Amino acid sequence: MADIARRAENRYGNRPTMKDVAARAGVGLKTVSRVVNAEPGVTADTERRVQEAIDALGFRRNDSARVLRKGRTASVGLVLEDLADPFYGPLSRAVEEVARAHGALLINGSSAEDPGREQELALALCARRVDGLVVIPAGDDHRYLEPEIRAGVATVFVDRPAGRIEADTVLSDSYGGARAGVAHLIAHGHRRIGFIGDQPRIHTAVERLRGYRSAMADAGIPVEDAWMSLGTTVPERVRVAAEAMLSGPGAVTAVFAGNNRVTVTVVRVLAERSRPVALVGFDDLELADLLVPGLTVIAQDAAQLGRTAAERLFRQLDGGSRTPERIELPTRLITRGSGEIPPAD
Amino acid sequence: MADIARRAENRYGNRPTMKDVAARAGVGLKTVSRVVNAEPGVTADTERRVQEAIDALGFRRNDSARVLRKGRTASVGLVLEDLADPFYGPLSRAVEEVARAHGALLINGSSAEDPGREQELALALCARRVDGLVVIPAGDDHRYLEPEIRAGVATVFVDRPAGRIEADTVLSDSYGGARAGVAHLIAHGHRRIGFIGDQPRIHTAVERLRGYRSAMADAGIPVEDAWMSLGTTVPERVRVAAEAMLSGPGAVTAVFAGNNRVTVTVVRVLAERSRPVALVGFDDLELADLLVPGLTVIAQDAAQLGRTAAERLFRQLDGGSRTPERIELPTRLITRGSGEIPPAD
Repeated sequence: MADIARRAENRYGNRPTMKDVAARAGVGLKTVSRVVNAEPGVTADTERRVQEAIDALGFRRNDSARVLRKGRTASVGLVLEDLADPFYGPLSRAVEEVARAHGALLINGSSAEDPGREQELALALCARRVDGLVVIPAGDDHRYLEPEIRAGVATVFVDRPAGRIEADTVLSDSYGGARAGVAHLIAHGHRRIGFIGDQPRIHTAVERLRGYRSAMADAGIPVEDAWMSLGTTVPERVRVAAEAMLSGPGAVTAVFAGNNRVTVTVVRVLAERSRPVALVGFDDLELADLLVPGLTVIAQDAAQLGRTAAERLFRQLDGGSRTPERIELPTRLITRGSGEIPPAD
Repeated sequence: MADIARRAENRYGNRPTMKDVAARAGVGLKTVSRVVNAEPGVTADTERRVQEAIDALGFRRNDSARVLRKGRTASVGLVLEDLADPFYGPLSRAVEEVARAHGALLINGSSAEDPGREQELALALCARRVDGLVVIPAGDDHRYLEPEIRAGVATVFVDRPAGRIEADTVLSDSYGGARAGVAHLIAHGHRRIGFIGDQPRIHTAVERLRGYRSAMADAGIPVEDAWMSLGTTVPERVRVAAEAMLSGPGAVTAVFAGNNRVTVTVVRVLAERSRPVALVGFDDLELADLLVPGLTVIAQDAAQLGRTAAERLFRQLDGGSRTPERIELPTRLITRGSGEIPPAD
């Protein structure tokens, strides 16, 4: 109980201040500030004396007060698409690590792929005076954020671009990744290749379809409508789409899956069939190497997406470049077996 | 645009009020309030009339205004262990869904399994005036929260219990689940069974070890020290532990993996070996059914943990029971092949 009382005291007013440290060390306030902020201009001996006073008093720099003095609340918001999608785990963690390194708390929530909910959440976070927002957009019109941006809220879009406003954006190269994945299937002898992707209003889905079309065109292969299916990534929808393009005389011999949700269902569908079908998926999966065959993927670096976006956000907050940029991160082909299966014909 | 404008109108003032409902139903305001809040003292006929007026006007109780009037900020905090652990995805999403249904925003962050960081984050959330906290604790002393709890912050611990304070706690039955999993291996003929778990300061790790010991004792099997290994779940540590107990003349013929992080590495180690070894893992994994053999697991319901904890939190906030309870949710054995492999002897 004594411990709690002391701790509560420390939190609510009796915390040692830099002034206390200065008095105990017998130096000026500016000297303590230099030591605390690791600035030059202090002799080793003085630094040691200040450090001893800091340790004796239990002084800790109050980062949030420091940031508050700049008119900020030392928090940033993250608007996710889905808290339960494993792709966003490493992305969120990376944003949080960068925020923490800047002394800011990360506040997040998810839009559940609903544009109205994205707007509601983003504005609620602004109303709570976050310094900045990292947004994985569900919608395609972000003009609702213009008053907030004018009022000084830093904003970075990640994974998908902003709609109808200019803003910093950090994306993976969806077009190039899908194109490379489909070219890989073509190089292994496939010509009838299916594409199953997310809903056509989602930017990454459209970009990946464009990559598919481009690889097919490069190889001079005419694409049939029946080979392409965009829609929600719920298992039922993906299963129907996969089974349709895998059936009949014109069945595809390979599938390119547009994201991790799609891949999981296509893997299940293929596992039930006797005829081997090649598969390349966009996004890596945790146990991809342990499937039989191992899953060939186009991997994005989700952590690097989050880190880049968050660093960009704090650069805006620190008064850095105000010209919106679009940063595109490369993807990586990882071959493990499923993408190297030859056509069954 | 019309849709957005309408939505904004509804959100910012033109919403039907209880007064509108009362006028339309021809009853007093108190009667409407009783129906809306499911309080007694209203006849069936009156209730039906009020309900018709509610439906006709599209009235919805404004929880967030209600909460704000009570001096609350309509937000709850979630202190996670690791944003990137897929186990916490469905748990977070469930907490968010319940919070949203109560008109509250979910603010979260992670402790990265560091008790100091857990405390810092929990107190930072309290300083931001969250109404309540759902905590997945990293530490084992939560007396630092006592002043906050006294000040009215609702608190629920989930996945692991609170330390040194009384608080609502929602857990999975780690002991019973592990015991059932190990009994399952014994029933398939195993006697030399290894246990690899998380660090011994983590409650679930200790409970699961207790379940392992209990199942072995029930079967009259003396446990050897070399069969048990607790420690961090980083792949390198788990790999060394697994390889040690799988080698030599007294090698185990089956392994019980204490959580999803451990299981992933044990699956990899077993995939490299020619001698078949049985495996049951605590926690399900997304592609568990597609591994060869399929992975037998003790599954927890992560979403149900989150939902139960969040509902408990809002019950506290609505002035419900103030007596801390401990709720334990059952686990489920899912057999898929890996746990039914007989001893190789």
